[in-house]
Amino acid sequence: MERAIGIFDSGVGGLTVFAAIRRALPDESLIYLGDTARVPYGTKSSETVIKYSLQCAKFLVERKIKALVVACNTSSAYSLPILREKNNIPVIGVIEPGAKKALSATKSKRIGVIGTSATIGSNAYGCLLKEYDAGVSVVSQACPLFVPLVEEGWLNNEIAKNTAKIYLESFKHENIDTLILGCTHYPLLKPVIAEVVGSNVGLIDSAEAVAEELKMKLAEKRLLNKKSGPSAYQLYVTDLPNRFEKIASDFLGGKIPSVKRIEL
Amino acid sequence: MERAIGIFDSGVGGLTVFAAIRRALPDESLIYLGDTARVPYGTKSSETVIKYSLQCAKFLVERKIKALVVACNTSSAYSLPILREKNNIPVIGVIEPGAKKALSATKSKRIGVIGTSATIGSNAYGCLLKEYDAGVSVVSQACPLFVPLVEEGWLNNEIAKNTAKIYLESFKHENIDTLILGCTHYPLLKPVIAEVVGSNVGLIDSAEAVAEELKMKLAEKRLLNKKSGPSAYQLYVTDLPNRFEKIASDFLGGKIPSVKRIEL
Repeated sequence: MERAIGIFDSGVGGLTVFAAIRRALPDESLIYLGDTARVPYGTKSSETVIKYSLQCAKFLVERKIKALVVACNTSSAYSLPILREKNNIPVIGVIEPGAKKALSATKSKRIGVIGTSATIGSNAYGCLLKEYDAGVSVVSQACPLFVPLVEEGWLNNEIAKNTAKIYLESFKHENIDTLILGCTHYPLLKPVIAEVVGSNVGLIDSAEAVAEELKMKLAEKRLLNKKSGPSAYQLYVTDLPNRFEKIASDFLGGKIPSVKRIEL
Repeated sequence: MERAIGIFDSGVGGLTVFAAIRRALPDESLIYLGDTARVPYGTKSSETVIKYSLQCAKFLVERKIKALVVACNTSSAYSLPILREKNNIPVIGVIEPGAKKALSATKSKRIGVIGTSATIGSNAYGCLLKEYDAGVSVVSQACPLFVPLVEEGWLNNEIAKNTAKIYLESFKHENIDTLILGCTHYPLLKPVIAEVVGSNVGLIDSAEAVAEELKMKLAEKRLLNKKSGPSAYQLYVTDLPNRFEKIASDFLGGKIPSVKRIEL
């Protein structure tokens, strides 16, 4: 069998990336790991996030993956350098592709970023955007309640709207034309976020950008699967699968592959 | 030195219990452990919660504590029997004292319980209340967004109020006269919860009931500290202390003892 692509996230959010990769690379087999026993990463320290990320990567690398996708913004913000140092395969995070996509979309060169406390605290998006284009202005805002809202399934009620209003208030007078959804849960709140920031602000969902970058990287390294035949999808979690399975169908839109539990 | 009392919680919430014990037993030394690297427990499975609870207890027991307080409702719901089996010291959870207090408070014998998904899913309060008094009626409701709201510091804004309205709606026609706050974070939302359920419903905060039960148990076993002298307070966490310290002052109301990080 051809080697698979490994994807990990702190929980269920990375399934938006899994779905985008499945669409962009239908011939590739995918192994997804959600660290549901320790979710969320977004409220934890860099040291802890790095430790957990290394354990997730190890599990996938032992399964002989040919590329590693870090489908978690918090983990991408902190652990990409060390994951690249330790692993001799392409390692792709969600922040670089999202930042590039935002830069190609913005006209005003004023970009907003929202994410978990850890991602925003790391300033990973801000640093990278400035590195790519020193002339860009970046305004960031942590939105800690967005993840619990999505996991509760409150995607479009009054609470979701009012929470979005409070968090996104700070962008009102910033004249941004592009807003990076710097957390894989946030695309599920797109309608509410769009309503608050207005139609003149483009929303950047990194999932598709990640899939494109991965495709390019695999082609460049001649790692694309040439054999046809059915692709295999394996989902793993670190806690019992029940809750994951329940939320996963919101993310994947329909039936999900069977989920196995493992220990890290 | 006299042996200390050990207290653990998934994170910062158990500090309400720590504070009540400090008030009730000012001569006792206390060691608190918050498992902040893996918080929350309330969305995780019983297996995972039991595994984490055993590790927390082990850390404290190795420090020669004379009694163990499980200051987390989720952990109390799942791991009390195994913790008692494995440890030869008094082990006190938050559920039994809270249930007893509710039973002595109710006149209508109709009691409401709110808590995390795991606590409510376990039906630990319902089973215990019925065991103590078969004639009692229990209505339960999981409130998954309450913990993130407290941790965000949104204790009394519109979002907190509307979230409480949605969750507590189910109690409207149940004629309960007593509501158990089955999560150590919830006492911080007392004003909002009281406003929604009305002044004819008494709110049961287990922290004080736990402290009383602990005092009684220590007296019974002749374990109360007889020596006078300053009490020592030690706080440990499994993630970096910064975020814990920030939220902890909301819980303890003022300056907190220094916090050390440990690995489990």
